[in-house]
Amino acid sequence: MKAVRLHSYHKQPVVEEVPEPRARDPFDVVVRIGGAGVCRTDLHIIEEQWAEKSGVALPYTIGHENAGWVEEVGSGVSNVAVGDTVILHPAPTCGLCHACRAGDDMHCLNSSFPGINTDGGMAEYLLTSARACIKLDPATQPSDVAALADAGITAYHAVRKAVPSLHPGTVCVVNGAGGLGHIGIQSLAALTATTIVVVDRNPEALDLAAKLGAEHTVPADGKHVEAVLDLTGGHGAEVVLDFVAEQGAQQDAFAMTRRGGSHFVIGYGSNIDIPTIDIISTERNVIGNLVGTYNDLVELMVLAQKGKVTLHTRKYPLDAALDALADLDAGRVRGRAVLTP
Amino acid sequence: MKAVRLHSYHKQPVVEEVPEPRARDPFDVVVRIGGAGVCRTDLHIIEEQWAEKSGVALPYTIGHENAGWVEEVGSGVSNVAVGDTVILHPAPTCGLCHACRAGDDMHCLNSSFPGINTDGGMAEYLLTSARACIKLDPATQPSDVAALADAGITAYHAVRKAVPSLHPGTVCVVNGAGGLGHIGIQSLAALTATTIVVVDRNPEALDLAAKLGAEHTVPADGKHVEAVLDLTGGHGAEVVLDFVAEQGAQQDAFAMTRRGGSHFVIGYGSNIDIPTIDIISTERNVIGNLVGTYNDLVELMVLAQKGKVTLHTRKYPLDAALDALADLDAGRVRGRAVLTP
Amino acid sequence: MKAVRLHSYHKQPVVEEVPEPRARDPFDVVVRIGGAGVCRTDLHIIEEQWAEKSGVALPYTIGHENAGWVEEVGSGVSNVAVGDTVILHPAPTCGLCHACRAGDDMHCLNSSFPGINTDGGMAEYLLTSARACIKLDPATQPSDVAALADAGITAYHAVRKAVPSLHPGTVCVVNGAGGLGHIGIQSLAALTATTIVVVDRNPEALDLAAKLGAEHTVPADGKHVEAVLDLTGGHGAEVVLDFVAEQGAQQDAFAMTRRGGSHFVIGYGSNIDIPTIDIISTERNVIGNLVGTYNDLVELMVLAQKGKVTLHTRKYPLDAALDALADLDAGRVRGRAVLTP
Amino acid sequence: MKAVRLHSYHKQPVVEEVPEPRARDPFDVVVRIGGAGVCRTDLHIIEEQWAEKSGVALPYTIGHENAGWVEEVGSGVSNVAVGDTVILHPAPTCGLCHACRAGDDMHCLNSSFPGINTDGGMAEYLLTSARACIKLDPATQPSDVAALADAGITAYHAVRKAVPSLHPGTVCVVNGAGGLGHIGIQSLAALTATTIVVVDRNPEALDLAAKLGAEHTVPADGKHVEAVLDLTGGHGAEVVLDFVAEQGAQQDAFAMTRRGGSHFVIGYGSNIDIPTIDIISTERNVIGNLVGTYNDLVELMVLAQKGKVTLHTRKYPLDAALDALADLDAGRVRGRAVLTP
Repeated sequence: MKAVRLHSYHKQPVVEEVPEPRARDPFDVVVRIGGAGVCRTDLHIIEEQWAEKSGVALPYTIGHENAGWVEEVGSGVSNVAVGDTVILHPAPTCGLCHACRAGDDMHCLNSSFPGINTDGGMAEYLLTSARACIKLDPATQPSDVAALADAGITAYHAVRKAVPSLHPGTVCVVNGAGGLGHIGIQSLAALTATTIVVVDRNPEALDLAAKLGAEHTVPADGKHVEAVLDLTGGHGAEVVLDFVAEQGAQQDAFAMTRRGGSHFVIGYGSNIDIPTIDIISTERNVIGNLVGTYNDLVELMVLAQKGKVTLHTRKYPLDAALDALADLDAGRVRGRAVLTP
Repeated sequence: MKAVRLHSYHKQPVVEEVPEPRARDPFDVVVRIGGAGVCRTDLHIIEEQWAEKSGVALPYTIGHENAGWVEEVGSGVSNVAVGDTVILHPAPTCGLCHACRAGDDMHCLNSSFPGINTDGGMAEYLLTSARACIKLDPATQPSDVAALADAGITAYHAVRKAVPSLHPGTVCVVNGAGGLGHIGIQSLAALTATTIVVVDRNPEALDLAAKLGAEHTVPADGKHVEAVLDLTGGHGAEVVLDFVAEQGAQQDAFAMTRRGGSHFVIGYGSNIDIPTIDIISTERNVIGNLVGTYNDLVELMVLAQKGKVTLHTRKYPLDAALDALADLDAGRVRGRAVLTP
Repeated sequence: MKAVRLHSYHKQPVVEEVPEPRARDPFDVVVRIGGAGVCRTDLHIIEEQWAEKSGVALPYTIGHENAGWVEEVGSGVSNVAVGDTVILHPAPTCGLCHACRAGDDMHCLNSSFPGINTDGGMAEYLLTSARACIKLDPATQPSDVAALADAGITAYHAVRKAVPSLHPGTVCVVNGAGGLGHIGIQSLAALTATTIVVVDRNPEALDLAAKLGAEHTVPADGKHVEAVLDLTGGHGAEVVLDFVAEQGAQQDAFAMTRRGGSHFVIGYGSNIDIPTIDIISTERNVIGNLVGTYNDLVELMVLAQKGKVTLHTRKYPLDAALDALADLDAGRVRGRAVLTP
Repeated sequence: MKAVRLHSYHKQPVVEEVPEPRARDPFDVVVRIGGAGVCRTDLHIIEEQWAEKSGVALPYTIGHENAGWVEEVGSGVSNVAVGDTVILHPAPTCGLCHACRAGDDMHCLNSSFPGINTDGGMAEYLLTSARACIKLDPATQPSDVAALADAGITAYHAVRKAVPSLHPGTVCVVNGAGGLGHIGIQSLAALTATTIVVVDRNPEALDLAAKLGAEHTVPADGKHVEAVLDLTGGHGAEVVLDFVAEQGAQQDAFAMTRRGGSHFVIGYGSNIDIPTIDIISTERNVIGNLVGTYNDLVELMVLAQKGKVTLHTRKYPLDAALDALADLDAGRVRGRAVLTP
């Protein structure tokens, strides 16, 4: 089958032929890929940012945001059958460790992360497990929803964690209204009555944000921290969802939080550097966020099916994977790029 | 009356005569001080660290950890009467803003902080409000409990916030077993069944920690991060309560946290500096902590009355306030220094 | 001034002249009433259902759902001034007990409840306290919002408590879409993405419910429990908000809950009677609800100002109070009856 | 192998020979039983109370509280191996439904309950699944801990749910200090600093309770509701853990709760019957409890290994199962009866 394989860091991946995966263990599931999202993390992988953390051996197939149809199942699989349309939680988990038994999938002690530390979904077929599969209405086009499998779940997970802080009368800043941010805005509008303020450099992104539920939009023009403080009576926001977290945006995001408020780090790239006296004198928090739980993705699919979260995607054939990566890197993608068979 | 007054930053305060305060507003309460704790923050005030944040005008009376007897009450005070023994929440609050109405005293929009931004309790009398007073058993000696009013409540507040993360089988590191830390250990032992690991440079502090409930003690000798990781199967601790947070201790504290874990910043002094990729790839949090609520102090007094939290204090007469400050600065105080009338 | 006074149980109240209240204590506030809601509880008071619980001495003025303008303030009042437009939390609280310090207003140990256990707001003026006042935009007509002061806050409080159980994919049944229920539906739609199912006997109420956000409406025709089970794949609803809770509706409401689900009792009148084996074999809960906190009402006013909660009211002059009570008793009021000056 | 089989309701079970179970499915685990607890629910099963709810076909093997050694494993089992010492969560679950993915084992849509609705553990061998197994230190005697598998987890689960309501200064009543209650008392003492009040008819049970952590013991002599109210200043307890819930105890338990408090139903047998006006005027709750999660049992084993929860058991050989049932029925068992090979 065809697959997008990374052979060397700092070089482009190659679309080449590799053997198809087979289901060997009782909970194995092989999925024929219908849509594979292209993510900024793919660029970071190529740039070697994840090499040490993932420990992956090159070459391997990238692609960690996948949906498709079940092609083959192991002997113990009971939740999906061949032919089912599925979206895949990014991390096949063991189901047996303390984290799994608490529903905290991303902290499974025995999980893999296809596309990060083992072969991923920018290919014709992907090997995953029964525990990663969410069965969808057969009418669903996998390429229409694939971007929910990582961009979507990550934004939704952060929003869901923030909900208890976002009662009516609060303000939530969405820092960055790109692939993840535009899902974050819609999730906020669906799950809370908070006042949504969106900060972005891009005027088109701000226009889209206003349509999706932002009450205020603020251009990231260097005066945006002050603008957010002005909008909040000088107090700042109860929650800042920081989908950027690089090149100074992470410092601005913390500066926009209110006393007792929380800076949710979702994007990444730079360091966050804060005087501890600022943390304790205002009792503010920095909250880490990593993808989301299986049930987060189930819930997000409910919102998607009800039309409360809609995706803006641009599709490329699998063969054009390098074009998609190049467009993303150059800032030419609105919403999310998705590879299709 | 006599009071310990700061006239210039970077110079020692002066014990001098000032007029006694009077109750003027309906909720005013004047307290005759029976015990005034001496805190590292008093040293930081003298060093000008709080000048900009507090905006206080010099000269003024320091001392933010107070207990005593009610001397005079305003016309609207119903919860205490002249002669009552009281411990004082550090921040007289308005009782009317959103934070107050949610029980979140430290984020009151209209509070003061005697000893920080207005005249404090290193004096014969202190002006506070009805909302700051917690009535005690008349048999209580104010100087025995005064240190609970700031050191105690601050440690207890952090522990109480951490409780939901500290089910049996978890590990909590107490970073620093000094004035606050030794109350933190006892609060953890009273409120949870977590495994308590204490890190400190001082062998005597570690001995005391072991008696108060620490299951493991780790000398802060440069190998302590590794030691904590070893004790936790390489995973780290679900919660690290960082009572130091300066001179690198804050970086070590974060390094001791487990995936999904939280670093509670309680001490202060240096900056915390973390790559955002480390925050998101492990979903770890940095949690700010600031004193505590009125009810936190009420609950802590219950623990103290039951003998579940006991204080190690060293008493000095008010006239010897400068000796107490000097001893604290030189590391000669075990537990907490308290000024008495 | 004129006031609606109850002289004997089981007899109609009388509109008569009484002295105007004055502000005597530091936190007293006298409000000129602009709107006083008429509630089923007023009928229950007349029927003597509350006599023992309230211990009120007759005659007294009823009316516990009030908004108006500040007429006079005590010496310690800082949050409102004469002339301010205000809506009133139903229970003036002490602000000093453990419950008040936790933001749990309805369990204040020293509160009163004007209209229940002391003179209420079906009058030209009402004596309340600073802690009950929420200042509104001066453009607000008190009679337009008065019904939020009790019907609204009560429905909103129950919804807010239910939010953590109502993630996307869940079902919430609203049992009874009258004065409280129609606010409950709107609050659910504003704060959650749950599927709202409304049960009511009245077809007009169901039509209104559908417009306000109900995804399914079910006539209470004796087959409604079965209908709800059918709508939920035989499982029942995660939450049932029971605004009726009398004449068997409370038994039906419990029967509509899912394993692990909760029956929120908000209405009242009959007994709930359940085999404990049914409670434990399915781990279901019965949750009490009583009005709401001061901050609940603040938050509800935010929703109202944003147009997310709108009231259906019918206004009567104060002199026509008995007509309003009679119309309510006879089922002739859609939404809420409100008395105006 | 030998097994304790129920052939007819209202007749005693029979110890007889049946075929040994085998592991057929990938996640199957066969356990050689080392200890099988005898529970009041076994008596209720014989009395036909569970017939309709469980739908089990007679004859079958009872026994739902089991520990032992792994005898055989299916092809997909990775968490335990032949020879491992294990305690068994009572409900083998699917691991794939929404409840399982949230860690909410008892509400799995596809679980079984050996001993209730399929063959249980009063036998030489039991068929269960990998997801039910908790691996123990090989030095552990299964018969010493078996009673934690149902009595223990059930008491612990209720306590853990109650912890957020049980801050210092609160009161928790333990209604019934038998098999479950004495574990509940120890769990409360380990996880909270609440004041524990124990109510029981039996003076020996009260003596044991006092040793295990009860601050007050109250004989259930008809004046116990009044006694609890007196102990709590007339207010009642924040939480009542009701391990009886039959023959009027459930009504007393509710009557002992404070405004805003909760009655946790854990025992069962009679109906609970409460006026809804009492529920809403005080905002009290009735909370269902059913066994507990897999992680609850893991945590309880941590407490047991630390010596914070100890069991009082009486052992009988498997052949004497009918004696054990008879002793339990006659009130002759202190603590818990356990069958051994």
